[in-house]
Amino acid sequence: MEIDYSKIKVIGFDADDTLWVNETYFREAEVEFGKLLSQFETINKIDQELFKMELQNLPIYGYGIKGFVLSMVEMALELSNNTVSNSTIKAILDIGKDMINKPVELIEGVETVLETLSKTHRLIVITKGDLLDQERKLKQSGLLDYFHHIEVVSDKKEENYSNLLNHLKVSPEEFLMVGNSLKSDILPLIHINAQAIHIPFHTTWVHEQVSDQDIKGKSYRTVQNITDLLPFFK
Amino acid sequence: MEIDYSKIKVIGFDADDTLWVNETYFREAEVEFGKLLSQFETINKIDQELFKMELQNLPIYGYGIKGFVLSMVEMALELSNNTVSNSTIKAILDIGKDMINKPVELIEGVETVLETLSKTHRLIVITKGDLLDQERKLKQSGLLDYFHHIEVVSDKKEENYSNLLNHLKVSPEEFLMVGNSLKSDILPLIHINAQAIHIPFHTTWVHEQVSDQDIKGKSYRTVQNITDLLPFFK
Repeated sequence: MEIDYSKIKVIGFDADDTLWVNETYFREAEVEFGKLLSQFETINKIDQELFKMELQNLPIYGYGIKGFVLSMVEMALELSNNTVSNSTIKAILDIGKDMINKPVELIEGVETVLETLSKTHRLIVITKGDLLDQERKLKQSGLLDYFHHIEVVSDKKEENYSNLLNHLKVSPEEFLMVGNSLKSDILPLIHINAQAIHIPFHTTWVHEQVSDQDIKGKSYRTVQNITDLLPFFK
Repeated sequence: MEIDYSKIKVIGFDADDTLWVNETYFREAEVEFGKLLSQFETINKIDQELFKMELQNLPIYGYGIKGFVLSMVEMALELSNNTVSNSTIKAILDIGKDMINKPVELIEGVETVLETLSKTHRLIVITKGDLLDQERKLKQSGLLDYFHHIEVVSDKKEENYSNLLNHLKVSPEEFLMVGNSLKSDILPLIHINAQAIHIPFHTTWVHEQVSDQDIKGKSYRTVQNITDLLPFFK
């Protein structure tokens, strides 16, 4: 079913990998981590084990850089059979600090799109991850003024979106979500009868990937660049 | 100036050490940490250095357990001159996981007070710290139904409160904040002409302490137990 764009009053944007680059830095960190531990295991095995450790710790640490760093430290102890050096532990902590201090790199076209759409629609940011990190990135991005509301959530499930729409007093058919993750930004919206547009980013965390089964029969629109949104609202 | 309680429409509650025990677990963790590193330094020195490290990392890690654990790991490397054992690093990670998994212990009287006041006032929670941790504690606390709104903020400065009151469409004279930290829950409210009641907790993190200068000439009410709030609203 095609979206009736004339009904849309509020547009929600995911932040990481939709407004600015993020996943790239996690991939780079994993490469660094692999190099640091290469004496103990193959890069492939290190990658796999780190991912398992992240998933295992996700319920207690949640999303974001700090939990990722804690998982890397734990993984280093485990992979090395408790023989990893103090300097490697220090290097892991430094990877985390570098990630937190990365400058915000906007994805091309973001500013034009937000400037245009903010004139006719209420724009909000809906992002998961660390509250402080996301606030810092929003401030640095220079995009804050385009948004009526910023919502940092601990997860992006149907329930989180339903609560937010209630809170904002917006009905599902008036709401469009835009984001790079099928799992977090698209499928939950389809399930609550809201609208969603997918803009893939060139790299996706395995945990955000969905199976063919998950999207079977689900109808959503995919565009390649954020600027492709503009013609829909002309 | 005495608070005009008849004007109050919305009451904000701090969470950690106001609704439930929290700081006690950080103190216990610091004692554990001191024991783990006792071969390298005196307990006193370890305490001081850890506090300095936490403050130094606060701008990047923010409040909450994960940043605290990362600071402990970094401190262990530094205090030991990079000779700390892998098993000690593992023990530090475990301190953090234990803290995150602590059951929620409500402060005496909290449930009675919330049940009573929720009949006549809009109650909200305003807390800083880790989003996932605070959501988990709220769910576990069984208190969620008493609150109209939960706000997890990255810091509790005047600006954060002003933004929140705007968002909730409440004027400062209609708002009362209740909490254990003069720095975070009381002084910013006085500065924006809202109302605040202080309920001291038996232990306060050094970073939350204020100087005599800070509170000089500031007028606020202190009560010893949360149940002492009830007579004001009779």
